Formats: sequence, structure tokens, C-alpha cells
Amino acid sequence: MLRLVIIFNAEINVDHILEELLKLNDDPRVHGVYLHLPPAALTNRVLNSLKPEKDDSLEGKTVLLVGGESPFRLVLQCLIERRGMVTAKSHWDSKSLEREVRCPHNGIQLTEHRYIFLHRAVGSLVLSSLHSLFSFIVRQNVVRSCTRWLQEQQYKPWRLRSLKLQPLTPVPSDLQISRAQTAKPVNHLAEEIGLLPEELEVYGRSKAKVRLSLLERLNSQPDGKYVLVAGVTPTPLGEGKSTVTIGLVQALSAHLNLNSFACLRQPSQGPTFGIKGGAAGGGYAQVIPMEEFNLHLTGDIHAITAANNLVAAAIDARMLHEATQSDKALFSRLVPSVNGVRRFSPIQISRLRRLGIIKSDPSSLSPEEVNSFVRLDLDPEKITWHRVVDTNDRFLRKITIGQASTEKGLTRETGFDIAVASEIMAILALADSMEDMKSRLGRMVVGTSRSGTPVTAEDLGVSGALAVLMKDAIKPTLMQTLEGTPVFVHAGPFANIAHGNSSVLADKLALKLVGEDGFVVTEAGFGADIGMEKFFNIKCRASGLRPNAVVLVATIRALKMHGGGPSVSAGAPLPTEYISENLNLVSGGCQSNLKKQIQNAQQFGVPVVVAINVFRTDTPAEIDLVCQLAKECGAFDAVPCHHWMQGGRGAVELAQAVKEATSKPSYFQFLYDLQMPIVEKIRTIAKRIYGADDIDVSAEAQRKIDYYHEQGYSTLPICMAKTHLSLSHLPERKGAPTGFVLPIRDVRASVGAGFIYPLVGTMSTMPGLPTRACFYDIDIDPITEEISGLF
Amino acid sequence: MLRLVIIFNAEINVDHILEELLKLNDDPRVHGVYLHLPPAALTNRVLNSLKPEKDDSLEGKTVLLVGGESPFRLVLQCLIERRGMVTAKSHWDSKSLEREVRCPHNGIQLTEHRYIFLHRAVGSLVLSSLHSLFSFIVRQNVVRSCTRWLQEQQYKPWRLRSLKLQPLTPVPSDLQISRAQTAKPVNHLAEEIGLLPEELEVYGRSKAKVRLSLLERLNSQPDGKYVLVAGVTPTPLGEGKSTVTIGLVQALSAHLNLNSFACLRQPSQGPTFGIKGGAAGGGYAQVIPMEEFNLHLTGDIHAITAANNLVAAAIDARMLHEATQSDKALFSRLVPSVNGVRRFSPIQISRLRRLGIIKSDPSSLSPEEVNSFVRLDLDPEKITWHRVVDTNDRFLRKITIGQASTEKGLTRETGFDIAVASEIMAILALADSMEDMKSRLGRMVVGTSRSGTPVTAEDLGVSGALAVLMKDAIKPTLMQTLEGTPVFVHAGPFANIAHGNSSVLADKLALKLVGEDGFVVTEAGFGADIGMEKFFNIKCRASGLRPNAVVLVATIRALKMHGGGPSVSAGAPLPTEYISENLNLVSGGCQSNLKKQIQNAQQFGVPVVVAINVFRTDTPAEIDLVCQLAKECGAFDAVPCHHWMQGGRGAVELAQAVKEATSKPSYFQFLYDLQMPIVEKIRTIAKRIYGADDIDVSAEAQRKIDYYHEQGYSTLPICMAKTHLSLSHLPERKGAPTGFVLPIRDVRASVGAGFIYPLVGTMSTMPGLPTRACFYDIDIDPITEEISGLF
Repeated sequence: MLRLVIIFNAEINVDHILEELLKLNDDPRVHGVYLHLPPAALTNRVLNSLKPEKDDSLEGKTVLLVGGESPFRLVLQCLIERRGMVTAKSHWDSKSLEREVRCPHNGIQLTEHRYIFLHRAVGSLVLSSLHSLFSFIVRQNVVRSCTRWLQEQQYKPWRLRSLKLQPLTPVPSDLQISRAQTAKPVNHLAEEIGLLPEELEVYGRSKAKVRLSLLERLNSQPDGKYVLVAGVTPTPLGEGKSTVTIGLVQALSAHLNLNSFACLRQPSQGPTFGIKGGAAGGGYAQVIPMEEFNLHLTGDIHAITAANNLVAAAIDARMLHEATQSDKALFSRLVPSVNGVRRFSPIQISRLRRLGIIKSDPSSLSPEEVNSFVRLDLDPEKITWHRVVDTNDRFLRKITIGQASTEKGLTRETGFDIAVASEIMAILALADSMEDMKSRLGRMVVGTSRSGTPVTAEDLGVSGALAVLMKDAIKPTLMQTLEGTPVFVHAGPFANIAHGNSSVLADKLALKLVGEDGFVVTEAGFGADIGMEKFFNIKCRASGLRPNAVVLVATIRALKMHGGGPSVSAGAPLPTEYISENLNLVSGGCQSNLKKQIQNAQQFGVPVVVAINVFRTDTPAEIDLVCQLAKECGAFDAVPCHHWMQGGRGAVELAQAVKEATSKPSYFQFLYDLQMPIVEKIRTIAKRIYGADDIDVSAEAQRKIDYYHEQGYSTLPICMAKTHLSLSHLPERKGAPTGFVLPIRDVRASVGAGFIYPLVGTMSTMPGLPTRACFYDIDIDPITEEISGLF
Repeated sequence: MLRLVIIFNAEINVDHILEELLKLNDDPRVHGVYLHLPPAALTNRVLNSLKPEKDDSLEGKTVLLVGGESPFRLVLQCLIERRGMVTAKSHWDSKSLEREVRCPHNGIQLTEHRYIFLHRAVGSLVLSSLHSLFSFIVRQNVVRSCTRWLQEQQYKPWRLRSLKLQPLTPVPSDLQISRAQTAKPVNHLAEEIGLLPEELEVYGRSKAKVRLSLLERLNSQPDGKYVLVAGVTPTPLGEGKSTVTIGLVQALSAHLNLNSFACLRQPSQGPTFGIKGGAAGGGYAQVIPMEEFNLHLTGDIHAITAANNLVAAAIDARMLHEATQSDKALFSRLVPSVNGVRRFSPIQISRLRRLGIIKSDPSSLSPEEVNSFVRLDLDPEKITWHRVVDTNDRFLRKITIGQASTEKGLTRETGFDIAVASEIMAILALADSMEDMKSRLGRMVVGTSRSGTPVTAEDLGVSGALAVLMKDAIKPTLMQTLEGTPVFVHAGPFANIAHGNSSVLADKLALKLVGEDGFVVTEAGFGADIGMEKFFNIKCRASGLRPNAVVLVATIRALKMHGGGPSVSAGAPLPTEYISENLNLVSGGCQSNLKKQIQNAQQFGVPVVVAINVFRTDTPAEIDLVCQLAKECGAFDAVPCHHWMQGGRGAVELAQAVKEATSKPSYFQFLYDLQMPIVEKIRTIAKRIYGADDIDVSAEAQRKIDYYHEQGYSTLPICMAKTHLSLSHLPERKGAPTGFVLPIRDVRASVGAGFIYPLVGTMSTMPGLPTRACFYDIDIDPITEEISGLF
């Protein structure tokens, strides 16, 4: 007569457990199962999961308790008190468990080897192995089985099977390369890197979301090395940071046999159909399948769009309702009588608290309190919230809404941005838990009341709904490179009005998964003066993570441009300087922009490896010169990379340099203290990172800064919205400009995301479609379902 | 020395096959594998999938061919001709195969039992069982193994494990009921109903998309019975068609042990946060998890939004580009020189053909031809295409776009609809293959040129991109009811400006899966005069499917209203007539609206079962009266249903009646012939279904009808946009009104979806948010991830 006792509290995902229990039903060796669930869950689940003959009672029996963590104490304690059976022990590890089972004390007694209490607070970690645990019990070896089970919950070494590449010459199109490779089923990949099946939510065959419970399971596991890929100031053509990122992890994992993870941004779908094509890397350094990467992926950007636009709809509907109803009517609608009872919802209680009204009975509010509760009194001129679409739709840049007669003349001018420009995208990238995301969503400021008070998403009553819409988006998406190494794709905020980095959560999950000796390679948008600076000062501040090395991507092309070469523009053929050897120009670029960007990284105390993304036209002398000068300028190392043509094999030298650099101690420090005044923080970035003499703050900007200071936002970090084409604010000034004063035209705040963003120039937040957009060539074969025209 | 030979053509999904091949690599019993792929696929896939020592050559060897279907002939023939090995036999079945292997003829020879050719044209059906096939080969029993393998590809009887329900009294909230039940993992459900693993694309644990290749695998399998759930003319509160649909399949499968499938519409996410709450059924007849059903699901509506808005962006961008560029500039941008070569893309060739220009060299076009090619010359006043969002955003009903200076003054008035009102949603619901969907998308008319020519999505060059965006949305989503029976959720077009039915493809897949003796229950929006009429005349015409029975849902409440009861409105308490017995009102409703709707179904030759959706306040006498009168009015049967309180057990009587009704022959016929003039088709519906004396066509409507006739659209079916609250056009006229003339205010066309829609009244295509929207109560617990406030 062997029995299992299973207790869970409300926090456990019962689905997975019951799935396992159904098997116990059919197992002739199990004679009874006692299941303890919180009252709310004691319903059909229980009835469906246990055959009557297996249903068991514990009255008056003595049991062994195995497991237990602090948030779980309460439930356990309740059970014990009600049943009067045993005393709980809430903290334990395998060693002490073994001791206690051998020599019972502390009220825990093992009398018959008949009952096992299995309980755990959060997640669904227990039951995947319940059945195998049971087998051990059958063999009367409780202790060893528990120890084994415990081990299964711990970090698992990788058993990565890399995919072989046989690169072709000339290099085919990105889509051809992607399609010619066979991606591993994503659940196989997940298993290879030590994810438990219950931590995975597969989306088709090649994508899966990873649950955040992983962070808890591997809580005690030391992080791997954290590597940022940044770049010199780029030409308008881009210098290949994404391909370097992917090539580097392909080299680390598939060629050096080191655990590594790339963390990438999810691209906007709009440009895919406009002028850009794909963003999954390129050549033999890609994420596959590239069409999945470039299209809907797992719907995160769609969720952001839905959440963003719900806020917008709530704003305008609220203004209409406030304009057309009395305080009393608004109040009776906002707090309706349901079956004769009027009650504030929790989100309304929060608003009352912010208004300083400490009441919970709706009828007790004074008319003045009702007035301040029901009226957000939004100033239509001061609504900063825009709608978004994930389409390049330039005609939505500036629009007038509310022109139907049903909206009673309440028209106003507003606009749509591309979805990735939504503050919600920046929040997704910076949140470190569901709780954190939810509270950031609630704090988002959508506009100002006529009396000058900021109005938040929580004031609109919409913050819970936003968190519900974003509940899946918060989980990073697992994909793989061409060589079968793992990649997280998660979040992709703008790099000017936001911080341009992939998510904190993806990095955190990856750092646990790669293990102590592994590497997480993450990418920052734009040049190092923008992406890297924000990575350090905003993202690392939010996450608490500390980088071990920076890879600074440079191309001979960009260096020549900074050394005085003619201007480079998209669509136009490259001037001859860029396709034939010119050591002078290369040297000039190294001594100016490359040197300054290396120094920028060094200001944060992080070692720099320069990665030269080699093009076919680069000469050995040019490459050697960059390597030599980069080291003279302070780089830890500088190496050429050939990943675009060769895949990971072409980035082995870089991988070795990165491994070496990260083995040295890093002395990371922030550039500025959050307590500094806003203007001083801006000035620090402008002078120390951009090389400006000073900043020039416009009257409008100063007025905003004063307002943000009043509102208590002055301790937020700074997110500069500056051109990425120059270290200065003038795109045409290449190299490392000096003698300029950085104009601060305006200042805005993303309070939910948690930064203030000074505008140095005009930022376009909605791209357009060219005359011949990419969509002319994009097609799908209806029979084979093969896509063409993405690149 | 045992060897496998595997040949595939380009149409096969190589991913799944290679996955299986990797296992063969490690199987010591396999000494060689010969893989034949089309040249384009002969790349790293091959190199990665085969160890060099397993790589094999067939030169000069004799082989056995197993399998082969017509589209595959070409590849096979090529191989044979090149290799000179064997002759192909393309058609076969297991019987003839057995014969041929025993007694080789026709050029097929089996000499050594060493080689097996496995080939198949489409899909990925082969390889899941390749390995097990191999085991049979090892046992030298080729014929039996092939036969067995063949059987595995055929229809599989269901082994459905239903979930038990123990309904509580009083009935808890929908969300509580949904959460208290443990859904089966969707891959288990899929296996139970005979889906192959490779036909499933799992999205998390509770949802999966089903691949259309299933239709081909089960091509020869007879369809099950096809049952439509429609309703009497409803009160504004709705009469429970969805819960009847779900209750009925729960009864059929979980209680009568008959295979059944419910096919439901996907609800718009907008109303979930507005006034409506969920749409997953209710009480103990629900789809679970209801929060997944009600939120993003598998992203289909998001894909529609993206596709719809890409068309809109392309329209306005094109008008801007045409307004600001000469013919020559447009032509050189639309047909650019790439590496010195100018070439039309396939989509541009299509446009040239439609313009009657049979040329393929861009330089050969005359200036007039260039002009007509490059200029769509859209009339801004006649653009019918709207943008969409899946949010209740009333301020977008009428807007002015293009007000930023970058758009050069090309402002125009337009609007946003809710996403499900997009024509693309109607197309998704009516398409019967990827090819059909793609061609419908291309045919969509977005507006008219200044010279009066319709301009299509294909003219914009965007149709291939739209199909790419919709490539996953075309696959129906599998979920389950509270009792663990299968449900397809797919498409949800408006029931006024579109046809309001779930997808043709979901119905088709379900009819194959349930098998000959099974049931597919699908639902039509609004009352039977609208939803059912459109189901028959539009959906059944598009699909070629023929219904076996109609379930007509009635409530005592609605019947009393039609019998002369006081008006019923949302939010207001129900008048006493509705909560106490009143046989007179019930009788009046039966003799009017119920009778007319029964007759409406009978005009199509389909038997009707009346299902009384019983409320707590209904009396036995009232229910008996409806049963009696319904049968007198021509219903095949009439039964009360208690699924809301009892789940499937409460709908067993209905299930038995439906089983009985579908066992009778059905004499289905359309109401009108497509060749009739548009006006006559409208008149037929108005007189025969609504009971109107005649129709009154406005001048504007007549002008449009003439125009559509000219453009060749006059053979499209009719999709009436009429109120659902009365059989007439006047919502307040209940019962079965007579003596009215139906006004046809305007007529529009959805050419891609394939219907003409006359407007009888004003249709709102964008709902608003109430003062206290649902979102006030919607929240998520950040720790447990439990959602609250959906209902």
C-alpha cells in the first residue's frame, strides 16, 4: 500500500501537475493519492484527476514532509493545524533532508514509508518527475529518490548538437541560406540547453516562449559572462553589429564548444515590407528560420500594439464621457450599484489613495472628492500618448480624430507612431518581472490635466488590462542560429526616443542558462555613443547586471568615412576610396571615431575587443592597420571577422579574444549618479561621451526639466535622442568632432519605462513606404508555402 | 546491408523528414541512405543530415518503388531518366502494391529487398513512421510494413477521453468555471482525435494550429454530418447560440460517445475590454481556457490587422508618389535597374496583362503604356478601404490623415473599423485553400480610379505580401470544451457587412476528422434570417458543403418579446412578463417569429430542430408549449436544453434529436441562382426570408448596382446588411412583420471575399468604450498569473 500526498498552494500551475496525476490513476502500484489544494481550486480539477478508489484521507496518519519554501508556509501550516498531523519544516536542502529522514527530529517523522508530501511554492517544477519519484518510492528508497529529484531541478550541463555549415561562394541570399539549413525542432534545442519541458511554450516548430519560472529554479546558479556588442559611428548602410553578434555565438558554441546565447531585438514588421527586408543577421550568421524572425514571431509586437491602442481609446473615450456627463452621472457610472452594492474596484482605490482620499465607501465621498475622483480633466493640448501600428504608414504621422458626429465635435490633432516606438516596448525591454512590468505600465504618463497634474494609465483604470494583454509578451522567444546555437529574441525599442536594447529578462534567463563558464552576447542599437551608453546607464541600472566586455564593431568602410572619405549613402554606388586600399583614411578613422568609442567604453571600466567586420574589398594591410591602431588606442584586442562568408568559423578569433577579455576583472561603473540634476546628467553625457564643449538647453526644454523635477522625476536616467550618424548632433560631422555645443531642443519623459529623453534633433517615429516597396517582391507559393522576396 | 532510399520533391516539408533522418544516422542497422532532393534543396540540409559513411549511391542498382501520387510524377520521372534505373508507377494502393511486390511487373522489380523508395508529393506524412517502417524492413517483410505504414496515413478512430464535470449550484462565473477545469494538453487532444503530430503546430499548452495538409491525407474519407446552429430573432441580450453549440458537442461526444466538433468564430478583442467580456460560451458550456480564447489566441486577428493596414499604407503612399513624380520617374523606380537589368516582377506582369499589355521587356513599353502601368490614378473621394484596429476606438470612426508637412497637403478623410470588419476577415472565413485565399486577396477592390476602373490589391503590388502575412492565420486553431471535446476557432467576420460565419476550412477539416458517423456543429451570427441565410447562400456556395440539419435556438424570453412582451434592453431590469409564466406571450412568439424562422430553414430543404435554451425562470408549461407549437410549425423536433447549468448532460436530449434529424435525407437547395440580376437576388431574400412586400432601391443604390454589373460583379451572392433585431429593417417590429417595403439605401461590394452587400440601415463598424469599461475589473496576479475580471 503505497501512497502519495501532494499539496500545492494557489501559486502552482495545477495544469501540469494534474496531467501527471492522471498517470498515477492508472498505475496499479499507487493505492492512494491525497491532494491538498487551496479552496478555490478544489473543484472539478480534483474530481477529474482522481479515481474515487484512489482518493485517500490522511486523518490521524503520520507523514513525511519533503520540500517546502517560504511563500508556501502558510498553506502548509493551515493544513497542519486543521489536520493536526505533523509539523512543517519549510526550508531544506538535499543534504539536510537526508539527515532528517535518517534521524527524524523537528516534528517530522517517518514511520511507515507510506506517505510522501510533495510540495513546492511556485511554478510547475515538481510534477514532471513525480512519476519517476514514485518509482523510487516503490523501491523503498525515499531518500535517494528525493535527492535525485532535487538534482533534476538543478542546472543541467548543455548537450548542444551544433548544425554543420558548408558555406557556398558566392554567398547566396539570406533567405536562400536560411532555407537551405534545417533548424532543430525548438523543443530539442531547449532540451539540449537544459530547459525543463514545463518551462517551454512552443509556438510551432521553430519558436518557443520560455517561462520566467526558470529564473527561480536557477536562482542559485552563478551567471555567465555578459558581453555587449556595440559599434563605431556607422555609415547609413550599417556596419553589421547583428551579424557579429550571431557570428560570435556561432563561433563560441559551435566551434569552441563554450555555452553561449545571443540576445537580439525583435524587428518591427513595418520595414520588412518597406525598404529594409529582414533583420535576422545576414550571410552565414543568421537566426533561422529568418522569415519567422521577421514576421509575426510570437506576437509580442502585436500585443504591444493592442495594449498601446487600448490606452489611446481609453483617453479619448474618457474625455468624451467627462465632457458630456455631470460629476454625479460619472460617479454613478464609474462606481455602479451591482445588486444594490456600490464598491470601488482595486484600481479605483489606488487612484483614491493617490488623490489622498483614504475612504473605501463610495457614499462617504464629499462632492469635492467625487469631483477629483471622476475627473481626470485631461488637457487635450497636452496629451502625449500616440496610437501605434506596426506598418510604415506615413499618412498617420499627423491626423485629426473624432470627426464623426457621434464624437460631438471633440476633434483633436494627434498621430500614430510605428509600434516599436511605443513606451510599452521600452517597458517590455526594461521590466525584470511581471510585477515590475505591471507597475511600470501603471506609471506611464499619458498627458497632463488642465491643472498640470500628470495623468497615468492607472488613473485611466487600464493598467490591469494592459498587463493581461502583455502576459505572454513578457516571456522571451527562443530561436536558433544557422549553426543550431540558441538565441533569445525579445523586445526592440527605438534607439533614439528609447534605449534601443533587447530585454533585461532575456539577458537574465540566458545568463542563468549558459552557466558560470558561458557567454551571453547582447546587442545595443546605433553607435556605442548611444546604444552602449544607454545599455550601461539605463539597462544595466535597471537589471543590476554587470557587463564583462564590449565588442566594438568596426568596418574599414566606416573607418574610412571617419578618416575623411567621401559621403556614403544608401542606394548610391560606393566611391572608389571604399573599394580600394587607402591606409590614410583608415588610419584617420581609427585615430578619431574608433579611438573615441574605445575610450567611451573604458569610461565605464569595461574591456573592449574591436571586431573588424571584413568585407571582400578590404585589404590585409588595412585590416592589420586597424588591429594595430585599435590596440594602441586602448582596446584589449582587435581581430578581423569573416562570419558573413564563413559562419562561426570566421569568428573564432573574435570568440577567443572575447573569452580572454572576459577572464580579466572588470571594473564597471556608471557614468553619472542618478541624484545629479537632470541638466547635469545631460551635460555629463554630452561632454564625456560625445565630446561636446557644453550643452545649450532651450527655454522649452528648461521649462520641461523644471516640471519633471517638480513631479519627482528628476532621479530618472537620461535617454538621449540624438542622430546616430555622428558623435555630435550634426550627421555630417564624422570622426570625433570637437568644439561643438549640443543643443537640447526639448525634453520628454517615459515615466513608466523610467527615463527622461532630451531631444537633440527631430526624431521620425513613423517611417514611410518607398515608390517600389519590398512588398512588390514578397510572395508565397500557395502549394509549398515557401516565401520569396525577404532578404 | 540494409538501405533506405528517400526521394522528395520541392513540395515536401523537408524539416520533419530530416529530423527523422538524423535518427537513422545513429541507427547501426542502417548501412546507407540515399536521399534525392530537387537541386535547390541539395545544400547544407543534406550535408547535415547524413554522416559520410551512410551516404549511398544507387548507380546501376535495382530498387523497389513504394508510394507516389500524381503531382510527384515529374520529379520521379526525372530521377529515373537521369539514373536509368527503374520505371515509375505513380498510382497505387496497398492492395495493388502487395500484388506487384509479389509478382513484379510493369518494370518494378524487387531483387534484393535492399532498397526502398519512399516518396510522396505533398506534406510531411511520410517520415513520422519512417523509422518504424525501417524496423519492418529489417524483418524482411517489406509488404506488410508498407501496408501498415499506409494504414497509419488513413483515418484513425477517435480515442477521446472526455473530462468530467461536477456542476455547482449556483453556477459560478464563467472564468471561475473555466479555471476550475483542467484542460487536456492540446497535443493529447490532437492525438485522441487522430491528428498526426506533423499536422499540429502547438501554441503553448492549450492551443494549436492544424495544418491544411490534413485535407489531403483524409481526402477519401467521407464527411461527417454538418449541423448549423442558428437562432430566432434575438433580444439585445442574445439568446445563447454559442452555448448551445458548445453544449451540443459536449453532449454528443462526452455523453453519447459520438465524434463531434464545434466550429466557432474568433471574437474581436476590442469588446473584451469594452462592454462585452468573453465570447467563449458560458456556464458549463464553454471553450477553455476562456482567457486564451478571448485574448490574442494564435494571432489571426493581429495578422489581419497587419495585412489590412499594409494595403491602406500602400494606397496613400502610392497616391503621394503618383502626385509628386513624372511617369518616367515612377517607371524607373517601380522597375529599377538592378545590376544593369530592368525586369518586371511577377505581380507587375499580372498588372500588365490586366491592362492588355502583353510585353515583358520594360524598355518596349510605349509612353502611353508606361502611363497606364505606373498610374493607378486613384480617386481620393472613391477609396473604400479603411484602416482597422482591434480596439473599441470610437474617435477613429472618422479622421483626417496626411496632415504632417511630409505628406505635402494630400490630406483626406477616412476612418478605422474594428479589425474583424476587414474584408480580409471575410476572405479568411471563405477561402478553401492558401491558393484561393491569395487570389481573393489580390482581387480585393480598394477604390476606383478617376476614370472609374476598380483598383485592386494586386494593382497595388501588395497581394503576395498579404498572403505572406496571412500564412499562419489560414490554419484553424484547435481548442477544447469544458468536457474535453474538440473545437476549432477560426475567423469571425461581421454578420452585417460580411457573412458572420466561422471558416470554411475549419468546417472542412472537422468534417474529415469526425468521420462518416460524426458531427460538425457550426454557428451562424445573428438570427436565422441573416446568419443562416448567409450560411447557406454564401458560405455553403463557397465551400460546396451541404448541411444536414439546422438547430434553431430560442429562449422563452425572446419568444415572449415576439409575442408582444414589453421591450428588452441591456442594462435595464427585465419586466415581470419575462420572469413569470405567460403562455399567451410565448404562444404569440411561437406563431410569429419562431414559425417564420423554421419556415426560412425549410425553404432551403434542411430539417430544423428547435433548441430551447432554458433559463431558471422558465416554467415547464412554457417549455412544453414551445415544444408543441414548434413541431406544429414544421420543426422536426423541439427540446429544452440545460447545458448552461449542467454542461453536456443538459443537452443530451438535443443531441439525440439532432442525431435523429441528420439521419433523414436532406434536400438542400439555394434560395436564388447567382445568374439572377442583383436586384432580383435582393428582392428574393427580402420577400422570402424577411417577409417584405417588396424592396425600394435608392437612386444611389441603383447607380452602384449598375456599376457592379458593368464591372462583371453581378454574379456574386448577396450579403444583406440589415438589423438583426427584427425580420424587417425596423428593430422595434418584433414577431414576423408583414406589409413593409425593405429600403435599399446603398450597395457595396467585397469583391475579394466575393459578395455584394446592400445596406438596409446604418452599420456601425467601430464600437466605443462605455464610461466604466470592462478594463476597470480586468487584472492579472503578477505571481500566479491568474487573470480576473473576464466573464
